[in-house]
Amino acid sequence: MDEDGNLQISNSNYNGEEEGEDPENNTLNQPLLKRHRTLSSTPLALVGAKVSHIESLDYEINENDLFKHDWRSRSKAQVFQYIFLKWTLACLVGLFTGLIATLINLAVENIAGYKLLAVGYYIAQDRFWTGLMVFTGANLGLTLVATVLVVYFAPTAAGPGIPEIKAYLNGIDTPNMFGFTTMMVKIVGSIGAVAAGLDLGKEGPLVHIGSCIASLLGQGGPDNHRIKWRWLRYFNNDRDRRDLITCGSASGVCAAFRSPVGGVLFALEEVATWWRSALLWRTFFSTAVVVVVLRAFIEICNSGKCGLFGSGGLIMFDVSHVEVRYHAADIIPVTLIGVFGGILGSLYNHLLHKVLRLYNLINQKGKIHKVLLSLGVSLLHQLLFGLPFLANEACDPTIDEICPTNGRSGNFKQFNCPNGYYNDLSTLLLTTNDDAVRKHFLFKHSYEFGMVSLWIFFGLYCILGLITFGIATPSGLFLPIILMGSAYGRMLGTAMGSYTNIDQGLYAVLGAASLMAGSMRMTVSLCVIFLELTNNLLLLPITMFVLLIAKTVGDSFNLSIYEIILHLKGLPFLEANPEPWMRNLTVGELNDAKPPVVTLNGVEKVANIVDVLRNTTHNAFPVLDGADQNTGTELHGLILRAHLVKVLKKRWFLNEKRRTEEWEVREKFTPVELAEREDNFDDVAITSSEMQLYVDLHPLTNTTPYTVVQSMSVAKALVLFRSVGLRHLLVVPKIQASGMSPVIGILTRQDLRAYNILQAFPHLDKHKSGKAR
Amino acid sequence: MDEDGNLQISNSNYNGEEEGEDPENNTLNQPLLKRHRTLSSTPLALVGAKVSHIESLDYEINENDLFKHDWRSRSKAQVFQYIFLKWTLACLVGLFTGLIATLINLAVENIAGYKLLAVGYYIAQDRFWTGLMVFTGANLGLTLVATVLVVYFAPTAAGPGIPEIKAYLNGIDTPNMFGFTTMMVKIVGSIGAVAAGLDLGKEGPLVHIGSCIASLLGQGGPDNHRIKWRWLRYFNNDRDRRDLITCGSASGVCAAFRSPVGGVLFALEEVATWWRSALLWRTFFSTAVVVVVLRAFIEICNSGKCGLFGSGGLIMFDVSHVEVRYHAADIIPVTLIGVFGGILGSLYNHLLHKVLRLYNLINQKGKIHKVLLSLGVSLLHQLLFGLPFLANEACDPTIDEICPTNGRSGNFKQFNCPNGYYNDLSTLLLTTNDDAVRKHFLFKHSYEFGMVSLWIFFGLYCILGLITFGIATPSGLFLPIILMGSAYGRMLGTAMGSYTNIDQGLYAVLGAASLMAGSMRMTVSLCVIFLELTNNLLLLPITMFVLLIAKTVGDSFNLSIYEIILHLKGLPFLEANPEPWMRNLTVGELNDAKPPVVTLNGVEKVANIVDVLRNTTHNAFPVLDGADQNTGTELHGLILRAHLVKVLKKRWFLNEKRRTEEWEVREKFTPVELAEREDNFDDVAITSSEMQLYVDLHPLTNTTPYTVVQSMSVAKALVLFRSVGLRHLLVVPKIQASGMSPVIGILTRQDLRAYNILQAFPHLDKHKSGKAR
Repeated sequence: MDEDGNLQISNSNYNGEEEGEDPENNTLNQPLLKRHRTLSSTPLALVGAKVSHIESLDYEINENDLFKHDWRSRSKAQVFQYIFLKWTLACLVGLFTGLIATLINLAVENIAGYKLLAVGYYIAQDRFWTGLMVFTGANLGLTLVATVLVVYFAPTAAGPGIPEIKAYLNGIDTPNMFGFTTMMVKIVGSIGAVAAGLDLGKEGPLVHIGSCIASLLGQGGPDNHRIKWRWLRYFNNDRDRRDLITCGSASGVCAAFRSPVGGVLFALEEVATWWRSALLWRTFFSTAVVVVVLRAFIEICNSGKCGLFGSGGLIMFDVSHVEVRYHAADIIPVTLIGVFGGILGSLYNHLLHKVLRLYNLINQKGKIHKVLLSLGVSLLHQLLFGLPFLANEACDPTIDEICPTNGRSGNFKQFNCPNGYYNDLSTLLLTTNDDAVRKHFLFKHSYEFGMVSLWIFFGLYCILGLITFGIATPSGLFLPIILMGSAYGRMLGTAMGSYTNIDQGLYAVLGAASLMAGSMRMTVSLCVIFLELTNNLLLLPITMFVLLIAKTVGDSFNLSIYEIILHLKGLPFLEANPEPWMRNLTVGELNDAKPPVVTLNGVEKVANIVDVLRNTTHNAFPVLDGADQNTGTELHGLILRAHLVKVLKKRWFLNEKRRTEEWEVREKFTPVELAEREDNFDDVAITSSEMQLYVDLHPLTNTTPYTVVQSMSVAKALVLFRSVGLRHLLVVPKIQASGMSPVIGILTRQDLRAYNILQAFPHLDKHKSGKAR
Repeated sequence: MDEDGNLQISNSNYNGEEEGEDPENNTLNQPLLKRHRTLSSTPLALVGAKVSHIESLDYEINENDLFKHDWRSRSKAQVFQYIFLKWTLACLVGLFTGLIATLINLAVENIAGYKLLAVGYYIAQDRFWTGLMVFTGANLGLTLVATVLVVYFAPTAAGPGIPEIKAYLNGIDTPNMFGFTTMMVKIVGSIGAVAAGLDLGKEGPLVHIGSCIASLLGQGGPDNHRIKWRWLRYFNNDRDRRDLITCGSASGVCAAFRSPVGGVLFALEEVATWWRSALLWRTFFSTAVVVVVLRAFIEICNSGKCGLFGSGGLIMFDVSHVEVRYHAADIIPVTLIGVFGGILGSLYNHLLHKVLRLYNLINQKGKIHKVLLSLGVSLLHQLLFGLPFLANEACDPTIDEICPTNGRSGNFKQFNCPNGYYNDLSTLLLTTNDDAVRKHFLFKHSYEFGMVSLWIFFGLYCILGLITFGIATPSGLFLPIILMGSAYGRMLGTAMGSYTNIDQGLYAVLGAASLMAGSMRMTVSLCVIFLELTNNLLLLPITMFVLLIAKTVGDSFNLSIYEIILHLKGLPFLEANPEPWMRNLTVGELNDAKPPVVTLNGVEKVANIVDVLRNTTHNAFPVLDGADQNTGTELHGLILRAHLVKVLKKRWFLNEKRRTEEWEVREKFTPVELAEREDNFDDVAITSSEMQLYVDLHPLTNTTPYTVVQSMSVAKALVLFRSVGLRHLLVVPKIQASGMSPVIGILTRQDLRAYNILQAFPHLDKHKSGKAR
């Protein structure tokens, strides 16, 4: 009946009990009960092995007597405190995200820089093998640090974190996702993995870090050392945390691409499920703060105080020098970029899905396997990156620039070539990933990079992009895709030759955009991010065109990469659009396939409450009045499991069966206590004499749960559930007659998911085709 | 009970009938019934005198048998047609909006240009009075054209149209708002009014024009000459029209400011009530098409083929040359700009409200009064603009530019000054409004415009901005506010003198931004529009800072100007956030204050249907089954008045009381017919023998209306109503007992409006304070 109930139902005795009572109903139930096999039997390494108990968040306001009193008694000053704090927190989220992004960039550029300088030093001395050893050793060491931290301290820090944030904002509370440890591991691990030259980015992790900062600020610090500040109590609810985390994710994107509007649109388009106009402005405020912080650091670093960190470092992919020239005839190559981008992107999604399933099997075997897998992947990187060490003859004469650029950051590397020559492959490979992208985007000469080198680069990064993402380190998807895409664009540009006027740098930009659209299926936010990177409005129409084609092509093959990961992790994400066949099923029919609802009386015996808590795992129970009388049964509302546990813990028992006064409950409970999520019932010992006492559930009951009539179609129920952000939806009967219960069921997130419904009603599947969008 | 019912209830016999039936209930009713006094007794000139019957739109899917069959039978090809058409229409909306925006700009610049050249010619010959006469005559003539068109052909074309679009997207169908006549009058009238030099802009009207284009394209042409294209039938519903009009409004903003992202965000932040991720992308596509069209025309005009229309004309306020320099110390002047902007903006809102109420009284007297008012305002413009003709001595020595610029567009006008001198006031006044803004924004010398001239300019435009908006011509609010704001900013900059590093052009930009935020309370979209105008990311933090302060200051005084206009027009707009006191009222209590609900039986007698249609003006009726039996009453669903009328018109009667088969209804009705809005019942004549027949309402009944239990708080019901986009919300009882009806009421938009509820429950008003946002 409840999401948690379903998760654990196959282990508890509840299922067995049910069978005895209602054997006929249960045959229908069976598929519905089995529906969590995916999640419980194959927890992906990406989420971490600890995942067992995913709760839904509650974005609805719990209107019980206590809440109403608290609401009525809020003074103007308290409302002001609340508003002021909301804005302050939004500002702080931006500030910290900006600072940490700068820190990560500084660390990566310096670590990777000194590593590459050392290698260059040995190469220049013709000590190739020493160079290779130093290179390999440093990279393996950095990978080891990142992996060990993730595997042993915070498994949830693996991967990009964006799918989990998306799930959180949809109402799914993945455990340990936004904790302090996760954040610290994510920061350090990200630095290690990126500095090790692995084919993964820091963009996704930055979004996760931004969200962690938001969550930690909202709750007043790490779980064990929270600040008990009075003002923060207003934020002790899922709604306000959700808003803050939205700000955090937008800040993260902004910090990654230095794109404030793009960050806001990313949060709006890709991450957020609910959105309000007021939130738009607050999110934008956060991202603007990030930009101010980044700009301040750029000023500081321009004066050379950041070590090897150049002025360009904070502008991730500085494409502002790309020359944008195009004419009507260029529509053909641009269309080609889009079509191939879409095909490649969906192919990448498809293959990555397979690789992740394989990695999942390996990672399940234990922690040491995870570490070994990471090291293996890192070693493969080193072997492949060793290519330029072998390709001695791949030397080209230098071009106009003071070249080759040894011992400093620059476009052309001499590597093992004679003076006056440069090695184009090593120029692309022996550098940080960010630099490689920059080199692709920056066009100087058509013969800058040879076609063979580009093919090698592209092939290499296709392989690396597939095998790297699933390992147990923080890893972003943006950068691998941008690397592949820019190489592919540049290749296409070179192949086009003199046919077009578009320069090859622009080809690289469009190639990266098309592959991102083909894989991630983002559109507006991507377009704006590229717009803000290039600062050139002329790029807009052509980028849009490419993105539109690539997304359309990609959508005709498979789902976006984030959706694939969400499915793989078994997170119960609710889609925006109901499936067409959901119109042919009523919630009444859906409800009939479930065990009957467990209800409580308004004034209930303690023994009954204990019984219900022990024997079910539901998170909410409808409260009925007058069920034992003949005047008709009244639906009073819905009470949360957490509040029942709280009542038992506080022993708020009555000697007689009576309604309490408002002051009685106010004396015993505070709104802050009731906002806490606590349903650990094991340590509550109730004596047998207490079992005979009564509890008045009325004051703690949410009197205004949302309801649907049983004839409502599942499609519309889903729209309601998602639009309003519910956790429980009551089903009421369509017939008025005596002796009937005023509530016939509860629907939760799990019951409304297409996959679960199809398990119970397989015949609906034939209508699956023809989904309009 | 229904919105329409309430609108006309005081005139119909329904009210009287009700009184006889339920006198006790009626005392409670009285305030609720009176609630439309505002709308019906004072229809503002802005909407036009014809407004009498505002319907709600229906964004919910009407799931009756016919719909379900149509949905099931849709082939893949049809789904593809639908998607293809959606995108084609989005493209066409952008294309036409871009073309019409260019047309308006060309016409305005050429008409105003030749007018000003003629005046300049007479002045140069020292024939001041002839110049003044030509100037005044031309302007009065242009004003007359604009006013007569609006007053006699399309009263809905008056004003900016943005509040009505906002209302439409909220679910309020203002009549004649998006017709072909309205659009044509808006285009011609806008050209006339702007070319006449009135203090109003073409930005608001462009948004309205974009929405008209979208609406006309969606329905296949003007009302009387629609294309009956088969593909267009998918768009014959309120949902898809809503999406198209969102695209149209975004395109309009984009065309006005050449700001594609700003346009999308404007639609998202200010106009739209519902929003989906898919819509974001389609809207963005439309605005990108607009940009392409505008850019093509700029290229053409650059080659001098557009008459007096210079290259800068299409870039409305070319602020890309503003130099952005600021330091930490500049925070004080920037704060000042924001604070004053907020105060001035809300003061402007307050005064404009008063002026609009006054104008309303004048305009109500008749069409000729409207025309005279417009001409009077225009004449006042001429008198005030005559000031430079009088101020002979206001001459300044010329500056480095080839100056004065007579006979061509340029920054400094000689006017009546000796050679080598220019008249700064005439430079600002005797030009188009767009040019005046450009001059404010473009900073060359601190002594360019004298303080006295700036004060005169500011004072003048404050007066004009207040008196011009309410006249019966198409009029945008953006430009008057930008003019005031830039003058105010420039004055503040001049007053600051050497204290700051910010140049006075930037002061003017920030002044304009602050006043817009202070009056319109837009933030993100405004920020992005300025960002895209300046193409300078450095401007972002400082603009945000100013906007944030100005909006906060403004919000603490009064509502935004659009909200004020919405209230003035009495449009039943549903706000996003429920009032806090709504938590203390249940929908059951609210429902008790209304007349009892009128229900129909599943198989109903024709006589009863005719009776109900004649005696009520409700737009929907709950359909019950088994009300006459003892087995309990079942809620079957909700039937629309339009469908009942359709049944009577088609004479789909049964001789006996029976349920029909699905093919019977499919034979008689098509989904297209049922999508039409038709409730004109007058021309249906039913014979007395037909009166005794039966109608099976089941197949036409929406079986899945949204419901709330009577104990639901009004706050939550409002959230549901607005999130899902409802027209009717059924109230079901919380008690299950025999003999009760399964539906106890219907709530509509009008019932959930704060103002209306407070009329019926005045005691709730004390909780009004302390509204959280």
